[in-house]
Amino acid sequence: CRAHKIVVLPGDGIGPEIADVALRVLTSAGRAEGEEFAFEEGLIGGAALDGAGVPCPEATLEACRRSDAVLLPAVGGYKWDNVDPVLRPERGLLTLRAGLEVFANLRPAVVLPQLAGASSLKSEIVTGVDIMIVRELVGGIYFGEPRGFRTNENGEKVGYNTMIYSEKEVERIARVGFDMARKRNKRLCSVGKSNVLEVSMLWMEVVSRIGEEYADVELTHMYIDNAAMQLLRNPKSFDTILTGNIFGDILSDEAAMITGSLGVLPSASISNTGPGIFEPVHGSAPDIAGQDLANPIAMVLSAAMMCRYGLNIPKVAERMENAIALVLDQGYRTGDIMSDGMTQVGCKQLGDLIQEQV
Amino acid sequence: CRAHKIVVLPGDGIGPEIADVALRVLTSAGRAEGEEFAFEEGLIGGAALDGAGVPCPEATLEACRRSDAVLLPAVGGYKWDNVDPVLRPERGLLTLRAGLEVFANLRPAVVLPQLAGASSLKSEIVTGVDIMIVRELVGGIYFGEPRGFRTNENGEKVGYNTMIYSEKEVERIARVGFDMARKRNKRLCSVGKSNVLEVSMLWMEVVSRIGEEYADVELTHMYIDNAAMQLLRNPKSFDTILTGNIFGDILSDEAAMITGSLGVLPSASISNTGPGIFEPVHGSAPDIAGQDLANPIAMVLSAAMMCRYGLNIPKVAERMENAIALVLDQGYRTGDIMSDGMTQVGCKQLGDLIQEQV
Ligand SMILES: CC(C)[C@H](C(=O)O)[C@@H](O)C(=O)O
Ligand SMILES: CC(C)[C@H](C(=O)O)[C@@H](O)C(=O)O
Repeated sequence: CRAHKIVVLPGDGIGPEIADVALRVLTSAGRAEGEEFAFEEGLIGGAALDGAGVPCPEATLEACRRSDAVLLPAVGGYKWDNVDPVLRPERGLLTLRAGLEVFANLRPAVVLPQLAGASSLKSEIVTGVDIMIVRELVGGIYFGEPRGFRTNENGEKVGYNTMIYSEKEVERIARVGFDMARKRNKRLCSVGKSNVLEVSMLWMEVVSRIGEEYADVELTHMYIDNAAMQLLRNPKSFDTILTGNIFGDILSDEAAMITGSLGVLPSASISNTGPGIFEPVHGSAPDIAGQDLANPIAMVLSAAMMCRYGLNIPKVAERMENAIALVLDQGYRTGDIMSDGMTQVGCKQLGDLIQEQV
Repeated sequence: CRAHKIVVLPGDGIGPEIADVALRVLTSAGRAEGEEFAFEEGLIGGAALDGAGVPCPEATLEACRRSDAVLLPAVGGYKWDNVDPVLRPERGLLTLRAGLEVFANLRPAVVLPQLAGASSLKSEIVTGVDIMIVRELVGGIYFGEPRGFRTNENGEKVGYNTMIYSEKEVERIARVGFDMARKRNKRLCSVGKSNVLEVSMLWMEVVSRIGEEYADVELTHMYIDNAAMQLLRNPKSFDTILTGNIFGDILSDEAAMITGSLGVLPSASISNTGPGIFEPVHGSAPDIAGQDLANPIAMVLSAAMMCRYGLNIPKVAERMENAIALVLDQGYRTGDIMSDGMTQVGCKQLGDLIQEQV
């Protein structure tokens, strides 16, 4: 059995320190299950801009394309706030997503029982929340053409973008949504703004058509504004949510904050053919970078998602997930999820504890 | 002093019953301050579709244009779920907004002290929340051209919309935002997605430029995904939020739900020259229509916003707002905001109680 080829793009801010933990835990969990990993490092984001002049160098894309999966801790930081917009660290992320055609972004919003108190929401409303958001990631208004600036007939400057989806684009993400719902509680809620937008009407039409192939999955449609409300009013009413790129960006961050524990939420971005990208939902937290304060859990759980959805070695994923549950049960917390009676530890020590349990 | 000419568009669902309460309260409050109102009724939404074949008849637009202000309780209902999309009741609302060029939608998200317990959020997080969302209402992706459906080079159907803003459009809404912040706590947070979208880069650029004229207002910029999170994490950190049409649609509904009392939130949509539209944030609630169960407070507070922002008779507005506070203090509630120890009353009776206090 050959080693799984993993490209690691440590990126910016707390990226390198949480990557370090994830690789150690992954290696141990793999060893216990007879799986081996070969890691290769690459540049992305601000680090790539500093090191190679662009936020996603061709060499990075090439290495990723040859790999089995990509681990990406975080990009961005104040340091690059004033660079040319097209060179911003975040643009590196978009280039990488498009380059690998990872069209399906899976973002679980799960309230770990150990952390239910951390939410802004009342605990009876959040305890037991378990939502999977399936977001289209390489289309919609993020990539739609035409886009740009121009001067209009009154001589004023105008900025514009195009929100656009084709039948095929909606079909392939809809199938991911339905397949996911089928493995979960068989309820799929498709979110758009079809009372106003043609692009959402097409979305709704195609999703409904694909839904006919999934008679066992209950399909509902919701407007984005209503979804933003219902997520708050009763997050437990959702199982799987299917939505476009920008709506998914907003809803998945809202859902993440509803759980109250951004520092523990992973994500997976997958394609139909090539390697996926596995990254925490949180950002690069430049204010605490290098201080051993970061929470590595989201990164470790992203590596677990990689094992499950990218490498098809679910046993390694389970090992990592269980180790985290155990360490949380034992009362260990990083500062961001600290609460009364718990033991506060740093990033490295939490990593050691997880590694021991794996 | 001539009577203020008000067009009332009762619309659908609970619209007529809450309109009835608002007109009574408004008349009494006006009388106490020496102000008179002349009401004219018109058709909008599903009622207009049934009565005139279109969701916003020309006659309605004409009447509104001649008026001093428009009161609009609610539109829509399951009954029209299957009509041609361009005839949907909500489209009537969009036509009316565009026709009156009410480019500034003001949506307060305020937690009334009497109702703080109703939120999904912990009460220490919501008590004292007082946010004003200033949403651009007649531009952006709601109205941008080109839009529609076409067949692409692969023979697939495509749906598309254009998110577009011109300098002038951003300037005028930015001024409303800054003026509003100036009357409040002097903090304006402009929300977009300028790390991805050109239209948001233009928005940010223009808002920053206008901000130079408002040195006393602190301006910050936030990405929409982060705003959706921060609203939840710490809603009290916001004062005035300035944003585009669709982002404002999403954020204002999220903010409304954060307060926990959708049934009491009003909104104002104003132009620089003509009459404004004043409507509750909640919808037409067809499931409880005609049963005397609706909460009329949002509608009465919308009429109060009309007096303040549309007719410049703030004393009448205060009278109505104070009357509502008194009735809530006395423990009267409609079903939607009912809690232990309070007295549940119907729509009409709550109206009577408010009218008595006015
Ligand atoms: C950094 C940014 C471009 C990115 C996005 O909007 O997709 C981020 O918010 C995310 O959700 O991964
Ligand atoms: C009904 C719909 C078209 C409308 C909108 O999206 O503007 C509503 O959600 C609102 O916010 O007033």
